[in-house]
Amino acid sequence: MELKKIQEIFQGDRFAREMGAEIVEARQGYARCVLPLTEHHKNAAGGVMGGVLFTLADFAFAVAANCEQMTTVSLTSQINFLSRVKGTCLEAAATCIKAGRNTCCYHVTITDDLGTLVAQLTITGFTAATGGEGRF
Amino acid sequence: MELKKIQEIFQGDRFAREMGAEIVEARQGYARCVLPLTEHHKNAAGGVMGGVLFTLADFAFAVAANCEQMTTVSLTSQINFLSRVKGTCLEAAATCIKAGRNTCCYHVTITDDLGTLVAQLTITGFTAATGGEGRF
Amino acid sequence: MELKKIQEIFQGDRFAREMGAEIVEARQGYARCVLPLTEHHKNAAGGVMGGVLFTLADFAFAVAANCEQMTTVSLTSQINFLSRVKGTCLEAAATCIKAGRNTCCYHVTITDDLGTLVAQLTITGFTAATGGEGRF
Amino acid sequence: MELKKIQEIFQGDRFAREMGAEIVEARQGYARCVLPLTEHHKNAAGGVMGGVLFTLADFAFAVAANCEQMTTVSLTSQINFLSRVKGTCLEAAATCIKAGRNTCCYHVTITDDLGTLVAQLTITGFTAATGGEGRF
Repeated sequence: MELKKIQEIFQGDRFAREMGAEIVEARQGYARCVLPLTEHHKNAAGGVMGGVLFTLADFAFAVAANCEQMTTVSLTSQINFLSRVKGTCLEAAATCIKAGRNTCCYHVTITDDLGTLVAQLTITGFTAATGGEGRF
Repeated sequence: MELKKIQEIFQGDRFAREMGAEIVEARQGYARCVLPLTEHHKNAAGGVMGGVLFTLADFAFAVAANCEQMTTVSLTSQINFLSRVKGTCLEAAATCIKAGRNTCCYHVTITDDLGTLVAQLTITGFTAATGGEGRF
Repeated sequence: MELKKIQEIFQGDRFAREMGAEIVEARQGYARCVLPLTEHHKNAAGGVMGGVLFTLADFAFAVAANCEQMTTVSLTSQINFLSRVKGTCLEAAATCIKAGRNTCCYHVTITDDLGTLVAQLTITGFTAATGGEGRF
Repeated sequence: MELKKIQEIFQGDRFAREMGAEIVEARQGYARCVLPLTEHHKNAAGGVMGGVLFTLADFAFAVAANCEQMTTVSLTSQINFLSRVKGTCLEAAATCIKAGRNTCCYHVTITDDLGTLVAQLTITGFTAATGGEGRF
């Protein structure tokens, strides 16, 4: 699927989109999303809020895992905060480590535009046989 | 410290505040925050985005761990998504399980206004001896 | 099912059994296992090795999740080490937080015989429709 | 430090050693440990018990993080079980992703001798300023 088509589908991810996240590369099992940082992403200590990092990573995972069909949801995610953000833009890259019949495992790394590794996540996803509700 | 004073301090958490999160109860080691849900919190599948749940929980943790002084940051967090949100408002309750000299462990539960347990988190925090940067 | 019958079935968990773990209470969704500590459980720093705590907890989860049929495996587990063991016996209690059609979530707490909360785990399990191999 | 000297020091990790784990490569920030599998490592379903995988990985982390001095303990670890073991020997490789002043983050991969990626862990460690007890 073309990037343009994928971007269009994920316009529906309102929370990530309104936060400023954009898809820059996407195929089944891999996606890269970027986020230009603004004052809106700050926490009370002046840093970038953990929820911003998580949301960007979760979005990259959702794109990578659902390029072909919208049937994978995250079951559990772990985020490790590694360094303070020093740059002005973040990039999350989600990579499939294992895709089984029903579950999958992705790694997501978040770096800033100065090359600092800011956070890493491991996301365990569940793929429904059908796209129904209440899937897991 | 009074709730009003705490709410004022955490106005600085712009990302959580602009998302709609509000502190309803707070003391050192415990906090409850609520989030009335809107269309802005949706993902492409029509549910509440994982990043919304994480941000609300992370905010409740930050409040509970930093009521007295702003020196605790999260090191690593794990979120388990347990049920689809069916209600119209979320509540996150953060409780300190262990507070050591340098690190702490919090549990956060997220429920909706229909009483559904939506997600649970375990957050490991690091408390700096001084409030300096680059703390961990 | 009676405790005796359950203990018999889980004799097959050789690694946990040879380590010294014993089932003291078990029903679908809940189990308690104990481990009398010996020199064999030590690490190079003189404490109880993390692997001992994990194994005991994982065993309690396996018993709780598979009392009725042997179809649930763990997909991902997180362990938080909270306090040094000071007692001479450990107890792990596994409780089901959520049991869905295909996945489940358990909390496990590990305490020593002095009442110290030593570690906590969150375990995400996957329940196969049939007991076949290569299940997740 | 020579491998022989490191192996000698970690003889004290009785639980890992008696399970059969051996250090095959080690330097500060990196270690590889192997485990020839036997009937003793089995669970009730006939597979390798999760506790075996965790113990091997935790041992590799302990070696990698404490080659120079015995001051780092694990705070929290997450393990993702990815594939059933099919081979007869396991290898865990622990790599430092981030080493801060007080905390560190390691990735550990576990593969079998057929090249299957069996499990992955992310381990968050805490490094005490001094080697004292009750450190975190």
